[in-house]
Amino acid sequence: MPIIISDPEDQRIEPYRAVRERDLVGRQHRFIAEGEVVLRVLLKQPRFEVESLLLAENRIGSLSDALENLPPDVPVYTASRQVMDAIVGFPIHRGILAVARRAPLPPVEGFLAMLPQEALIVGLVGLANHDNVGGIFRNAAAFGAQGVLLDPESCDPLYRKAIRVSVGGALVVPFTRAASADAMVQALQAASFDILALSPSGREVLSQVRPTRRMALLLGAEGPGLPAELLTRTRTVSIPMSSGFDSLNVATTSGIALHHLTSGGP
Amino acid sequence: MPIIISDPEDQRIEPYRAVRERDLVGRQHRFIAEGEVVLRVLLKQPRFEVESLLLAENRIGSLSDALENLPPDVPVYTASRQVMDAIVGFPIHRGILAVARRAPLPPVEGFLAMLPQEALIVGLVGLANHDNVGGIFRNAAAFGAQGVLLDPESCDPLYRKAIRVSVGGALVVPFTRAASADAMVQALQAASFDILALSPSGREVLSQVRPTRRMALLLGAEGPGLPAELLTRTRTVSIPMSSGFDSLNVATTSGIALHHLTSGGP
Repeated sequence: MPIIISDPEDQRIEPYRAVRERDLVGRQHRFIAEGEVVLRVLLKQPRFEVESLLLAENRIGSLSDALENLPPDVPVYTASRQVMDAIVGFPIHRGILAVARRAPLPPVEGFLAMLPQEALIVGLVGLANHDNVGGIFRNAAAFGAQGVLLDPESCDPLYRKAIRVSVGGALVVPFTRAASADAMVQALQAASFDILALSPSGREVLSQVRPTRRMALLLGAEGPGLPAELLTRTRTVSIPMSSGFDSLNVATTSGIALHHLTSGGP
Repeated sequence: MPIIISDPEDQRIEPYRAVRERDLVGRQHRFIAEGEVVLRVLLKQPRFEVESLLLAENRIGSLSDALENLPPDVPVYTASRQVMDAIVGFPIHRGILAVARRAPLPPVEGFLAMLPQEALIVGLVGLANHDNVGGIFRNAAAFGAQGVLLDPESCDPLYRKAIRVSVGGALVVPFTRAASADAMVQALQAASFDILALSPSGREVLSQVRPTRRMALLLGAEGPGLPAELLTRTRTVSIPMSSGFDSLNVATTSGIALHHLTSGGP
Protein backbone atom coordinates (compact mmCIF):
# COMPACT_ATOMS: atom_id res chain seq x y z
CA MET A 1 0.00 0.00 0.00
CA PRO A 2 1.36 3.42 -0.90
CA ILE A 3 2.31 5.70 2.00
CA ILE A 4 0.60 9.07 1.61
CA ILE A 5 2.83 12.11 2.10
CA SER A 6 0.97 15.36 2.72
CA ASP A 7 3.75 17.45 4.28
CA PRO A 8 6.67 18.43 1.98
CA GLU A 9 8.87 18.51 5.11
CA ASP A 10 8.16 14.87 5.94
CA GLN A 11 11.48 13.26 6.93
CA ARG A 12 10.71 10.03 5.09
CA ILE A 13 11.06 11.63 1.67
CA GLU A 14 14.36 13.36 2.51
CA PRO A 15 16.27 11.84 -0.48
CA TYR A 16 13.84 13.53 -2.90
CA ARG A 17 14.28 17.00 -1.44
CA ALA A 18 15.73 19.65 -3.78
CA VAL A 19 16.54 17.07 -6.43
CA ARG A 20 18.14 19.53 -8.81
CA GLU A 21 20.82 20.67 -6.37
CA ARG A 22 21.45 17.15 -5.14
CA ASP A 23 22.27 16.06 -8.67
CA LEU A 24 25.43 18.09 -8.45
CA VAL A 25 26.84 16.86 -5.15
CA GLY A 26 28.28 13.59 -3.90
CA ARG A 27 25.55 11.02 -3.57
CA GLN A 28 27.10 7.95 -1.95
CA HIS A 29 26.20 5.76 -4.92
CA ARG A 30 22.58 6.86 -4.76
CA PHE A 31 20.84 8.17 -7.84
CA ILE A 32 17.42 9.40 -8.89
CA ALA A 33 15.46 7.86 -11.73
CA GLU A 34 12.60 9.84 -13.29
CA GLY A 35 9.62 8.96 -15.45
CA GLU A 36 7.73 5.80 -16.32
CA VAL A 37 10.01 4.45 -19.06
CA VAL A 38 13.12 4.84 -16.91
CA LEU A 39 11.40 3.38 -13.83
CA ARG A 40 10.35 0.30 -15.76
CA VAL A 41 13.92 -0.21 -16.99
CA LEU A 42 15.24 0.27 -13.44
CA LEU A 43 12.89 -2.31 -11.94
CA LYS A 44 14.21 -4.91 -14.39
CA GLN A 45 17.89 -4.38 -13.48
CA PRO A 46 18.96 -6.60 -10.58
CA ARG A 47 22.27 -4.74 -10.21
CA PHE A 48 20.52 -1.73 -8.70
CA GLU A 49 18.85 -1.66 -5.31
CA VAL A 50 15.67 0.43 -5.35
CA GLU A 51 15.33 2.21 -2.00
CA SER A 52 11.97 3.89 -2.47
CA LEU A 53 9.53 5.41 -4.96
CA LEU A 54 7.73 8.73 -4.90
CA LEU A 55 4.72 8.86 -7.20
CA ALA A 56 2.10 11.45 -7.95
CA GLU A 57 -1.35 10.18 -6.88
CA ASN A 58 -2.60 9.95 -10.45
CA ARG A 59 0.34 7.79 -11.59
CA ILE A 60 -0.19 4.87 -9.24
CA GLY A 61 -2.80 3.25 -11.48
CA SER A 62 -0.75 3.09 -14.67
CA LEU A 63 2.18 1.56 -12.77
CA SER A 64 0.27 -1.11 -10.85
CA ASP A 65 1.70 -3.97 -12.93
CA ALA A 66 5.29 -2.81 -12.37
CA LEU A 67 4.71 -2.24 -8.66
CA GLU A 68 3.56 -5.81 -8.17
CA ASN A 69 7.12 -7.02 -8.68
CA LEU A 70 8.64 -4.57 -6.23
CA PRO A 71 10.12 -6.21 -3.10
CA PRO A 72 7.62 -5.70 -0.25
CA ASP A 73 10.11 -3.80 1.92
CA VAL A 74 10.55 -0.98 -0.62
CA PRO A 75 8.36 1.94 0.45
CA VAL A 76 6.14 3.53 -2.18
CA TYR A 77 5.33 7.12 -1.25
CA THR A 78 2.58 9.04 -2.93
CA ALA A 79 1.74 12.73 -2.86
CA SER A 80 -0.39 15.29 -4.63
CA ARG A 81 1.25 17.04 -7.55
CA GLN A 82 1.54 20.18 -5.44
CA VAL A 83 3.29 18.46 -2.52
CA MET A 84 5.55 16.57 -4.92
CA ASP A 85 6.62 19.76 -6.68
CA ALA A 86 7.34 21.36 -3.28
CA ILE A 87 9.53 18.39 -2.30
CA VAL A 88 11.67 18.25 -5.42
CA GLY A 89 11.82 22.01 -5.94
CA PHE A 90 10.43 22.26 -9.48
CA PRO A 91 7.38 21.01 -11.42
CA ILE A 92 7.95 17.31 -11.89
CA HIS A 93 5.74 16.72 -14.92
CA ARG A 94 6.27 12.99 -15.11
CA GLY A 95 5.15 12.51 -11.50
CA ILE A 96 7.40 9.48 -11.06
CA LEU A 97 10.67 9.36 -9.11
CA ALA A 98 12.72 6.57 -7.59
CA VAL A 99 15.83 6.55 -5.42
CA ALA A 100 18.16 3.64 -6.09
CA ARG A 101 21.70 2.67 -5.26
CA ARG A 102 24.46 1.20 -7.35
CA ALA A 103 27.35 -1.00 -6.23
CA PRO A 104 30.85 0.56 -6.09
CA LEU A 105 32.42 0.71 -9.55
CA PRO A 106 34.88 -2.13 -10.25
CA PRO A 107 38.46 -1.50 -11.42
CA VAL A 108 38.74 -1.34 -15.22
CA GLU A 109 40.81 -4.53 -15.39
CA GLY A 110 38.19 -6.50 -13.46
CA PHE A 111 35.41 -4.97 -15.55
CA LEU A 112 37.09 -6.00 -18.81
CA ALA A 113 37.85 -9.49 -17.45
CA MET A 114 34.11 -10.09 -16.99
CA LEU A 115 33.28 -9.40 -20.64
CA PRO A 116 32.69 -12.17 -23.17
CA GLN A 117 35.37 -12.91 -25.76
CA GLU A 118 33.27 -11.17 -28.41
CA ALA A 119 32.68 -7.70 -27.11
CA LEU A 120 32.08 -4.14 -28.26
CA ILE A 121 32.55 -1.39 -25.72
CA VAL A 122 32.68 2.40 -25.73
CA GLY A 123 35.33 4.55 -24.02
CA LEU A 124 34.58 8.20 -23.18
CA VAL A 125 37.28 10.82 -22.67
CA GLY A 126 36.41 14.29 -21.38
CA LEU A 127 32.66 13.99 -21.98
CA ALA A 128 31.28 16.35 -19.34
CA ASN A 129 27.92 17.02 -21.02
CA HIS A 130 24.96 15.08 -19.55
CA ASP A 131 22.97 15.13 -22.78
CA ASN A 132 25.83 13.66 -24.76
CA VAL A 133 26.65 10.98 -22.18
CA GLY A 134 22.95 10.09 -21.95
CA GLY A 135 22.67 9.95 -25.74
CA ILE A 136 25.73 7.70 -25.99
CA PHE A 137 24.31 5.27 -23.42
CA ARG A 138 21.05 5.18 -25.35
CA ASN A 139 22.96 4.20 -28.50
CA ALA A 140 25.16 1.74 -26.60
CA ALA A 141 22.03 0.01 -25.29
CA ALA A 142 20.29 0.08 -28.68
CA PHE A 143 23.23 -1.55 -30.45
CA GLY A 144 23.97 -4.00 -27.64
CA ALA A 145 27.37 -2.70 -26.52
CA GLN A 146 28.65 -4.71 -23.53
CA GLY A 147 30.03 -1.81 -21.54
CA VAL A 148 31.19 1.79 -21.29
CA LEU A 149 34.43 3.08 -19.78
CA LEU A 150 34.65 6.67 -18.50
CA ASP A 151 37.70 8.81 -17.83
CA PRO A 152 37.67 11.03 -14.70
CA GLU A 153 36.45 14.10 -16.66
CA SER A 154 33.38 12.37 -18.11
CA CYS A 155 30.15 12.93 -16.23
CA ASP A 156 28.31 10.37 -14.14
CA PRO A 157 25.86 8.43 -16.37
CA LEU A 158 23.55 8.17 -13.36
CA TYR A 159 22.82 11.86 -13.14
CA ARG A 160 19.06 12.20 -13.35
CA LYS A 161 19.21 14.04 -16.67
CA ALA A 162 21.70 11.64 -18.25
CA ILE A 163 19.49 8.68 -17.32
CA ARG A 164 16.45 10.46 -18.74
CA VAL A 165 18.17 11.34 -22.04
CA SER A 166 19.43 7.75 -22.26
CA VAL A 167 15.79 6.56 -21.96
CA GLY A 168 17.13 4.16 -19.32
CA GLY A 169 20.16 3.04 -21.37
CA ALA A 170 22.44 4.27 -18.56
CA LEU A 171 20.81 1.60 -16.34
CA VAL A 172 21.17 -1.11 -18.98
CA VAL A 173 24.79 -0.89 -20.13
CA PRO A 174 27.36 -1.64 -17.39
CA PHE A 175 30.06 0.98 -16.92
CA THR A 176 33.06 1.82 -14.81
CA ARG A 177 35.60 4.59 -14.48
CA ALA A 178 39.31 4.50 -15.31
CA ALA A 179 41.93 6.45 -13.34
CA SER A 180 42.85 8.30 -16.55
CA ALA A 181 42.39 8.11 -20.31
CA ASP A 182 45.88 6.66 -20.43
CA ALA A 183 45.02 3.92 -17.92
CA MET A 184 41.88 3.16 -19.97
CA VAL A 185 43.88 2.60 -23.14
CA GLN A 186 46.49 0.49 -21.32
CA ALA A 187 43.82 -1.74 -19.81
CA LEU A 188 42.11 -2.14 -23.20
CA GLN A 189 45.40 -3.07 -24.85
CA ALA A 190 46.19 -5.58 -22.08
CA ALA A 191 42.75 -7.14 -22.63
CA SER A 192 43.41 -7.47 -26.39
CA PHE A 193 40.86 -4.92 -27.52
CA ASP A 194 41.11 -3.41 -30.98
CA ILE A 195 40.94 0.27 -30.08
CA LEU A 196 39.20 2.52 -32.63
CA ALA A 197 39.68 6.18 -31.79
CA LEU A 198 37.23 8.43 -33.65
CA SER A 199 38.85 11.62 -34.87
CA PRO A 200 38.41 14.01 -37.83
CA SER A 201 42.09 13.34 -38.58
CA GLY A 202 41.63 9.55 -38.47
CA ARG A 203 43.78 7.49 -40.85
CA GLU A 204 41.03 4.96 -41.65
CA VAL A 205 37.52 5.70 -42.88
CA LEU A 206 34.73 4.28 -40.72
CA SER A 207 32.79 2.72 -43.60
CA GLN A 208 35.90 0.65 -44.50
CA VAL A 209 36.54 -0.67 -40.99
CA ARG A 210 35.80 -4.36 -40.62
CA PRO A 211 34.42 -5.38 -37.23
CA THR A 212 36.70 -7.55 -35.10
CA ARG A 213 35.92 -9.73 -32.10
CA ARG A 214 36.94 -7.29 -29.36
CA MET A 215 36.42 -3.67 -30.21
CA ALA A 216 36.58 -0.51 -28.14
CA LEU A 217 35.28 2.71 -29.65
CA LEU A 218 36.91 5.81 -28.12
CA LEU A 219 35.12 9.16 -28.22
CA GLY A 220 36.30 12.60 -27.11
CA ALA A 221 34.37 15.81 -26.54
CA GLU A 222 33.24 17.94 -29.47
CA GLY A 223 35.83 20.64 -29.95
CA PRO A 224 38.95 19.32 -28.24
CA GLY A 225 38.45 15.73 -29.40
CA LEU A 226 40.67 12.93 -28.14
CA PRO A 227 44.14 13.82 -26.79
CA ALA A 228 46.79 13.75 -29.54
CA GLU A 229 48.99 11.48 -27.46
CA LEU A 230 46.23 8.91 -27.29
CA LEU A 231 45.72 9.02 -31.08
CA THR A 232 49.34 7.91 -31.63
CA ARG A 233 48.69 4.66 -29.75
CA THR A 234 45.37 3.61 -31.34
CA ARG A 235 43.73 2.93 -34.71
CA THR A 236 42.30 6.31 -35.67
CA VAL A 237 39.06 6.39 -37.64
CA SER A 238 37.30 9.30 -39.33
CA ILE A 239 33.78 9.85 -40.64
CA PRO A 240 34.06 11.75 -43.94
CA MET A 241 31.84 14.80 -44.06
CA SER A 242 30.87 17.61 -46.36
CA SER A 243 33.68 20.10 -46.90
CA GLY A 244 32.86 23.32 -45.10
CA PHE A 245 30.58 21.63 -42.58
CA ASP A 246 32.47 18.90 -40.79
CA SER A 247 30.56 18.92 -37.55
CA LEU A 248 28.76 16.01 -35.91
CA ASN A 249 27.32 15.72 -32.44
CA VAL A 250 29.32 13.19 -30.42
CA ALA A 251 26.27 11.13 -29.45
CA THR A 252 25.24 10.96 -33.12
CA THR A 253 28.81 9.94 -33.95
CA SER A 254 28.56 7.08 -31.44
CA GLY A 255 25.33 5.94 -33.09
CA ILE A 256 26.87 5.99 -36.57
CA ALA A 257 29.94 4.06 -35.47
CA LEU A 258 28.06 1.51 -33.35
CA HIS A 259 25.64 0.89 -36.20
CA HIS A 260 28.47 0.33 -38.64
CA LEU A 261 30.38 -1.99 -36.31
CA THR A 262 27.33 -4.10 -35.45
CA SER A 263 25.78 -4.30 -38.91
CA GLY A 264 28.51 -6.35 -40.53
CA GLY A 265 31.04 -3.82 -41.78
CA PRO A 266 31.89 -2.87 -45.36
CA MET B 1 31.12 51.72 -36.80
CA PRO B 2 28.94 49.96 -34.21
CA ILE B 3 25.97 51.90 -32.88
CA ILE B 4 26.04 51.94 -29.08
CA ILE B 5 22.73 51.09 -27.38
CA SER B 6 22.52 52.11 -23.74
CA ASP B 7 18.75 52.08 -23.22
CA PRO B 8 17.02 48.66 -23.37
CA GLU B 9 13.88 50.48 -24.57
CA ASP B 10 15.65 51.93 -27.62
CA GLN B 11 13.30 51.54 -30.61
CA ARG B 12 16.11 50.57 -32.98
CA ILE B 13 16.61 47.18 -31.33
CA GLU B 14 12.89 46.31 -31.30
CA PRO B 15 13.35 42.98 -33.17
CA TYR B 16 15.58 41.70 -30.34
CA ARG B 17 13.10 42.45 -27.59
CA ALA B 18 11.82 39.45 -25.60
CA VAL B 19 13.44 37.00 -27.97
CA ARG B 20 12.14 33.91 -26.21
CA GLU B 21 8.47 34.82 -26.61
CA ARG B 22 8.96 36.00 -30.17
CA ASP B 23 10.31 32.59 -31.09
CA LEU B 24 6.82 31.23 -30.67
CA VAL B 25 4.84 33.68 -32.74
CA GLY B 26 4.58 34.51 -36.41
CA ARG B 27 7.69 36.27 -37.58
CA GLN B 28 7.08 37.38 -41.17
CA HIS B 29 10.06 35.34 -42.45
CA ARG B 30 12.36 36.95 -39.90
CA PHE B 31 14.52 34.82 -37.66
CA ILE B 32 17.15 35.24 -34.96
CA ALA B 33 20.59 33.69 -35.20
CA GLU B 34 22.66 33.33 -32.04
CA GLY B 35 26.34 32.78 -31.30
CA GLU B 36 29.58 33.15 -33.21
CA VAL B 37 29.56 29.87 -35.12
CA VAL B 38 25.99 30.39 -36.34
CA LEU B 39 26.63 34.05 -37.23
CA ARG B 40 29.64 33.11 -39.33
CA VAL B 41 27.58 30.51 -41.19
CA LEU B 42 24.78 33.06 -41.72
CA LEU B 43 27.10 35.69 -43.18
CA LYS B 44 28.26 33.19 -45.81
CA GLN B 45 24.73 32.37 -47.03
CA PRO B 46 23.60 34.72 -49.79
CA ARG B 47 20.02 33.42 -49.61
CA PHE B 48 19.43 35.22 -46.30
CA GLU B 49 19.26 38.97 -45.88
CA VAL B 50 20.88 40.09 -42.64
CA GLU B 51 18.91 43.05 -41.22
CA SER B 52 21.05 43.91 -38.21
CA LEU B 53 23.41 42.57 -35.55
CA LEU B 54 23.35 43.05 -31.79
CA LEU B 55 26.68 42.29 -30.15
CA ALA B 56 27.95 42.50 -26.59
CA GLU B 57 30.76 45.07 -26.36
CA ASN B 58 33.40 42.46 -25.66
CA ARG B 59 32.50 40.38 -28.74
CA ILE B 60 33.18 43.03 -31.39
CA GLY B 61 36.92 42.31 -31.46
CA SER B 62 36.75 38.58 -32.15
CA LEU B 63 34.26 39.18 -34.99
CA SER B 64 36.09 42.02 -36.76
CA ASP B 65 37.12 39.82 -39.73
CA ALA B 66 33.53 38.65 -40.28
CA LEU B 67 32.12 42.15 -39.92
CA GLU B 68 34.38 43.48 -42.67
CA ASN B 69 32.32 41.60 -45.25
CA LEU B 70 28.99 42.88 -43.97
CA PRO B 71 27.16 45.21 -46.41
CA PRO B 72 27.69 48.78 -45.16
CA ASP B 73 23.95 49.44 -44.77
CA VAL B 74 23.49 46.68 -42.17
CA PRO B 75 23.49 48.28 -38.71
CA VAL B 76 25.68 46.71 -36.04
CA TYR B 77 24.36 47.53 -32.59
CA THR B 78 26.43 47.00 -29.50
CA ALA B 79 25.45 47.07 -25.84
CA SER B 80 26.80 46.15 -22.45
CA ARG B 81 26.02 42.63 -21.27
CA GLN B 82 23.52 44.08 -18.80
CA VAL B 83 21.60 46.09 -21.42
CA MET B 84 21.70 43.15 -23.84
CA ASP B 85 20.22 40.77 -21.23
CA ALA B 86 17.50 43.35 -20.49
CA ILE B 87 16.62 43.60 -24.19
CA VAL B 88 16.35 39.89 -24.92
CA GLY B 89 14.83 38.97 -21.56
CA PHE B 90 17.35 36.37 -20.36
CA PRO B 91 21.15 36.10 -19.96
CA ILE B 92 22.49 35.81 -23.48
CA HIS B 93 25.82 34.12 -22.71
CA ARG B 94 27.11 34.11 -26.25
CA GLY B 95 26.60 37.89 -26.59
CA ILE B 96 25.97 37.61 -30.33
CA LEU B 97 22.59 37.96 -32.05
CA ALA B 98 21.51 38.71 -35.59
CA VAL B 99 18.12 39.32 -37.19
CA ALA B 100 17.84 38.03 -40.73
CA ARG B 101 15.10 37.33 -43.24
CA ARG B 102 14.47 34.43 -45.54
CA ALA B 103 12.64 34.39 -48.86
CA PRO B 104 9.15 32.86 -49.00
CA LEU B 105 9.33 29.06 -49.16
CA PRO B 106 8.93 27.67 -52.68
CA PRO B 107 6.33 24.99 -53.56
CA VAL B 108 7.69 21.45 -53.13
CA GLU B 109 7.50 20.74 -56.87
CA GLY B 110 9.60 23.81 -57.70
CA PHE B 111 12.05 22.98 -54.90
CA LEU B 112 12.57 19.45 -56.22
CA ALA B 113 12.90 20.68 -59.80
CA MET B 114 15.91 22.79 -58.77
CA LEU B 115 17.85 19.80 -57.41
CA PRO B 116 20.62 18.08 -59.37
CA GLN B 117 19.92 14.67 -60.90
CA GLU B 118 21.98 13.01 -58.16
CA ALA B 119 20.37 14.09 -54.93
CA LEU B 120 19.81 12.96 -51.37
CA ILE B 121 17.15 14.76 -49.38
CA VAL B 122 15.40 14.29 -46.04
CA GLY B 123 11.64 14.45 -45.44
CA LEU B 124 10.29 15.16 -41.95
CA VAL B 125 6.80 14.19 -40.81
CA GLY B 126 5.42 15.36 -37.46
CA LEU B 127 8.78 16.46 -36.05
CA ALA B 128 7.70 19.18 -33.62
CA ASN B 129 10.80 19.08 -31.40
CA HIS B 130 13.35 21.87 -32.03
CA ASP B 131 16.28 19.84 -30.76
CA ASN B 132 15.51 16.98 -33.10
CA VAL B 133 14.92 19.19 -36.14
CA GLY B 134 18.13 21.10 -35.35
CA GLY B 135 20.05 17.86 -34.96
CA ILE B 136 18.70 16.53 -38.27
CA PHE B 137 19.77 19.70 -40.12
CA ARG B 138 23.23 19.39 -38.57
CA ASN B 139 23.50 15.85 -39.93
CA ALA B 140 22.01 16.83 -43.30
CA ALA B 141 24.67 19.54 -43.63
CA ALA B 142 27.48 17.27 -42.44
CA PHE B 143 26.62 14.58 -44.98
CA GLY B 144 25.89 17.00 -47.80
CA ALA B 145 22.17 16.41 -48.23
CA GLN B 146 20.72 18.73 -50.90
CA GLY B 147 17.51 19.62 -49.12
CA VAL B 148 14.93 18.97 -46.42
CA LEU B 149 11.15 18.80 -46.83
CA LEU B 150 8.86 19.46 -43.86
CA ASP B 151 5.24 18.54 -43.31
CA PRO B 152 2.94 21.12 -41.64
CA GLU B 153 3.43 19.58 -38.16
CA SER B 154 7.22 19.78 -38.23
CA CYS B 155 8.72 22.83 -36.52
CA ASP B 156 10.39 25.74 -38.25
CA PRO B 157 14.13 25.00 -38.70
CA LEU B 158 14.77 28.72 -38.26
CA TYR B 159 13.64 28.85 -34.65
CA ARG B 160 16.57 30.25 -32.70
CA LYS B 161 17.08 27.02 -30.76
CA ALA B 162 16.84 24.78 -33.82
CA ILE B 163 19.47 26.89 -35.62
CA ARG B 164 21.72 26.75 -32.57
CA VAL B 165 21.40 22.96 -32.17
CA SER B 166 22.06 22.58 -35.91
CA VAL B 167 25.33 24.55 -35.43
CA GLY B 168 24.15 26.57 -38.43
CA GLY B 169 23.15 23.56 -40.52
CA ALA B 170 19.60 24.95 -40.72
CA LEU B 171 21.08 27.91 -42.64
CA VAL B 172 23.10 25.68 -44.95
CA VAL B 173 20.64 23.07 -46.19
CA PRO B 174 17.75 24.48 -48.25
CA PHE B 175 14.27 23.46 -47.12
CA THR B 176 10.63 23.95 -47.91
CA ARG B 177 7.28 22.87 -46.56
CA ALA B 178 4.74 20.54 -48.14
CA ALA B 179 0.98 20.97 -47.74
CA SER B 180 0.83 17.50 -46.14
CA ALA B 181 2.91 14.36 -45.70
CA ASP B 182 0.84 12.88 -48.48
CA ALA B 183 1.61 15.77 -50.84
CA MET B 184 5.30 15.40 -49.96
CA VAL B 185 5.33 11.73 -50.99
CA GLN B 186 3.39 12.46 -54.18
CA ALA B 187 5.83 15.20 -55.20
CA LEU B 188 8.82 12.94 -54.45
CA GLN B 189 7.33 10.15 -56.54
CA ALA B 190 6.61 12.52 -59.40
CA ALA B 191 10.24 13.68 -59.28
CA SER B 192 11.49 10.05 -59.46
CA PHE B 193 12.88 9.89 -55.95
CA ASP B 194 13.54 6.53 -54.34
CA ILE B 195 11.67 7.03 -51.05
CA LEU B 196 13.17 5.28 -48.02
CA ALA B 197 10.85 5.46 -45.02
CA LEU B 198 12.62 4.62 -41.76
CA SER B 199 10.48 2.50 -39.49
CA PRO B 200 11.08 -0.19 -36.83
CA SER B 201 8.79 -2.39 -38.93
CA GLY B 202 10.74 -1.72 -42.13
CA ARG B 203 10.96 -4.57 -44.64
CA GLU B 204 14.58 -3.84 -45.63
CA VAL B 205 17.57 -3.49 -43.33
CA LEU B 206 19.46 -0.19 -43.64
CA SER B 207 22.91 -1.78 -43.89
CA GLN B 208 21.73 -3.72 -46.96
CA VAL B 209 20.28 -0.73 -48.81
CA ARG B 210 22.32 0.30 -51.84
CA PRO B 211 22.35 4.04 -52.54
CA THR B 212 20.58 5.17 -55.70
CA ARG B 213 20.85 8.41 -57.63
CA ARG B 214 17.82 10.18 -56.18
CA MET B 215 17.02 9.27 -52.62
CA ALA B 216 14.62 10.75 -50.07
CA LEU B 217 14.91 9.63 -46.46
CA LEU B 218 11.61 9.98 -44.57
CA LEU B 219 11.63 10.32 -40.78
CA GLY B 220 8.73 10.44 -38.33
CA ALA B 221 8.61 11.47 -34.68
CA GLU B 222 9.84 9.12 -31.97
CA GLY B 223 6.84 7.29 -30.61
CA PRO B 224 4.20 7.61 -33.33
CA GLY B 225 6.66 7.16 -36.19
CA LEU B 226 5.57 7.60 -39.80
CA PRO B 227 1.85 7.22 -40.64
CA ALA B 228 0.98 3.61 -41.55
CA GLU B 229 -0.69 4.74 -44.76
CA LEU B 230 2.55 6.36 -45.90
CA LEU B 231 4.53 3.17 -45.17
CA THR B 232 2.40 1.24 -47.65
CA ARG B 233 3.51 3.52 -50.48
CA THR B 234 7.27 3.65 -49.84
CA ARG B 235 10.32 1.42 -49.38
CA THR B 236 10.41 0.83 -45.63
CA VAL B 237 13.78 0.46 -43.95
CA SER B 238 14.64 -0.58 -40.41
CA ILE B 239 17.75 -0.28 -38.25
CA PRO B 240 18.11 -3.54 -36.31
CA MET B 241 18.60 -3.01 -32.60
CA SER B 242 19.15 -4.92 -29.41
CA SER B 243 16.08 -6.88 -28.34
CA GLY B 244 14.54 -5.25 -25.29
CA PHE B 245 16.01 -1.82 -26.08
CA ASP B 246 14.93 -0.76 -29.54
CA SER B 247 15.02 2.97 -29.07
CA LEU B 248 17.00 5.51 -31.07
CA ASN B 249 16.75 9.26 -31.07
CA VAL B 250 15.40 10.46 -34.43
CA ALA B 251 18.30 12.87 -35.05
CA THR B 252 20.76 10.04 -34.36
CA THR B 253 18.74 7.87 -36.72
CA SER B 254 19.10 10.48 -39.45
CA GLY B 255 22.87 10.53 -38.90
CA ILE B 256 23.12 6.75 -39.14
CA ALA B 257 21.05 6.60 -42.33
CA LEU B 258 22.74 9.58 -44.02
CA HIS B 259 26.17 8.14 -43.21
CA HIS B 260 25.21 4.79 -44.68
CA LEU B 261 23.70 6.27 -47.84
CA THR B 262 26.66 8.58 -48.49
CA SER B 263 29.47 6.18 -47.63
CA GLY B 264 28.88 3.75 -50.47
CA GLY B 265 26.34 1.30 -49.16
CA PRO B 266 26.81 -2.38 -48.28
